[in-house]
Amino acid sequence: MTKLLILDRQAAMYHQYIREAGLVDLEVLEASDPLALPPGVEHVQIALGPPDLLAPALSALPALRWAQSTWAGVEPMLNPGLPRNYLLSGVKGVFGRQMAEYCLCYMLAHERGVIERYLSQQRGVWQHDKPGRLAGKHVVLLGLGSIGAEIALRCRQFAMTTTGVTLSGRPSEHVDACFSVGQLPEVAASADYLVMSLPGTPSTRHLVDARVLSAMPQHAVVINVGRGQCLDEQALDAALRAGSLGGAVLDVFESEPLPAGHFLWHTPRLQISSHTAAVSYVEDIAPLFVTNLKRFLDGRAPDFLVDFARGY
Amino acid sequence: MTKLLILDRQAAMYHQYIREAGLVDLEVLEASDPLALPPGVEHVQIALGPPDLLAPALSALPALRWAQSTWAGVEPMLNPGLPRNYLLSGVKGVFGRQMAEYCLCYMLAHERGVIERYLSQQRGVWQHDKPGRLAGKHVVLLGLGSIGAEIALRCRQFAMTTTGVTLSGRPSEHVDACFSVGQLPEVAASADYLVMSLPGTPSTRHLVDARVLSAMPQHAVVINVGRGQCLDEQALDAALRAGSLGGAVLDVFESEPLPAGHFLWHTPRLQISSHTAAVSYVEDIAPLFVTNLKRFLDGRAPDFLVDFARGY
Repeated sequence: MTKLLILDRQAAMYHQYIREAGLVDLEVLEASDPLALPPGVEHVQIALGPPDLLAPALSALPALRWAQSTWAGVEPMLNPGLPRNYLLSGVKGVFGRQMAEYCLCYMLAHERGVIERYLSQQRGVWQHDKPGRLAGKHVVLLGLGSIGAEIALRCRQFAMTTTGVTLSGRPSEHVDACFSVGQLPEVAASADYLVMSLPGTPSTRHLVDARVLSAMPQHAVVINVGRGQCLDEQALDAALRAGSLGGAVLDVFESEPLPAGHFLWHTPRLQISSHTAAVSYVEDIAPLFVTNLKRFLDGRAPDFLVDFARGY
Repeated sequence: MTKLLILDRQAAMYHQYIREAGLVDLEVLEASDPLALPPGVEHVQIALGPPDLLAPALSALPALRWAQSTWAGVEPMLNPGLPRNYLLSGVKGVFGRQMAEYCLCYMLAHERGVIERYLSQQRGVWQHDKPGRLAGKHVVLLGLGSIGAEIALRCRQFAMTTTGVTLSGRPSEHVDACFSVGQLPEVAASADYLVMSLPGTPSTRHLVDARVLSAMPQHAVVINVGRGQCLDEQALDAALRAGSLGGAVLDVFESEPLPAGHFLWHTPRLQISSHTAAVSYVEDIAPLFVTNLKRFLDGRAPDFLVDFARGY
């Protein structure tokens, strides 16, 4: 009998999906708190959950052979001192559509002045200013992985022109044109929107800095859905305070949760979405886990394995 | 020499487009105020402008043969006592895309809690609640004219299921299913969003009333981009105050501009966009006008002629 621990705030929902898969020889334990694990966890071979809950539970799971993260990123599992003698798999392919909804949401809300009109409404003022529109606008996509490509697709459906900026600069079917990161300042000079969906690696740190921001048009908007460290937050704050940039929408930050009193909380023309651009819905993650679980129980390697040395 | 009066707040921009068309034998007058028309207007045969400016100018244009409205609706030109002895043309085909951007904007903003997150940000609070998403949601489109069809297309691109409700109920390629208005309460019962894009006619008055609203799920959202009279505003206010409806987004009202002190200004979970869902951009209207102008100067009928008796 293989023992599975579901360690998640929605453990019961995951359990229901797994039950429906009709797997035999599987014993399932449920928990939502890594500090209050049920009896018998020392025999658990498989764990499912978000890295922030799995990481502190690792020391209580000496028999662990495989952990399935419910997040795309697994940073908490990589902390020094934690065991790495098990298989760790991440999540791929389910966040792009949400990221695209997020980007279109905030781009459209910017064009339409949703916040400004809301504030006018509170004062009982008929705010009849002409809205903007996305059709014909230029979006620069910094990063064209599966998420950047999905965002580009949606932007094209709104008749935007699309330019990709990637490490290689190789042409991509997903965008009208593609350049390498060395050309970012020139490309950014004609951007209405700059959408960042980069992974957090040493080579992407502060890729969008004062130089890139100062190259952008005064009305342009920066959106970051990748990793906070890719953007120089001080430079962004300075540009927005100086009025040399039209706006910014940040889902990710160098430090998360963004600390109380952090200067970004009150940067003008900045909207903060608190790392909610793409979230793990049980209905998305459970089928992926069940597929991986069947592979594992059949003796095969789970999909989306993380390389502990690379970190993804 | 044919005389054209451009009576518009952006008359100079229209003039520039018309100049670039290189039409000979055309004399152009510019004005932005119907009460301060330039000398020579008594010989004007063609007028271009929004109905709210054209209507009060009509009495000063005895030689008028054709007026091109810059709006889709021409209500001010239909007021009793105004002359009707000229051709009046409206605008078609340029507002659907804007309406679609508007609807997707407010649907996505609702799913994402854009306003709620903005308010949290003002208090410096990391608001990490899970957002919703459009994929898989059900939108009911009440009205499937060129605007409703364009909205349906965009909803489908976001993986929503679409149902049309029209006077005829005939099947439409634009939606997954189509019903007639008599079935509206049953159809509305499974709507996440109800998008109204109906014209204002006697048969559409208060089509969405207390009965329809009470049939809708508690989380559902009503969006009206058509005409204010199609929705019973008292019933909407009551449903939102009672918490039996998730929200509403109104661009149009029974009385516009919405009067100061009107109860809708402070209806909970209602967003007001002050008739800006689709606006007349010079770059959209000018080419349409130039095409119509060439037709008129060639002795042909302009496109999009209004029937004064029908009112559209």
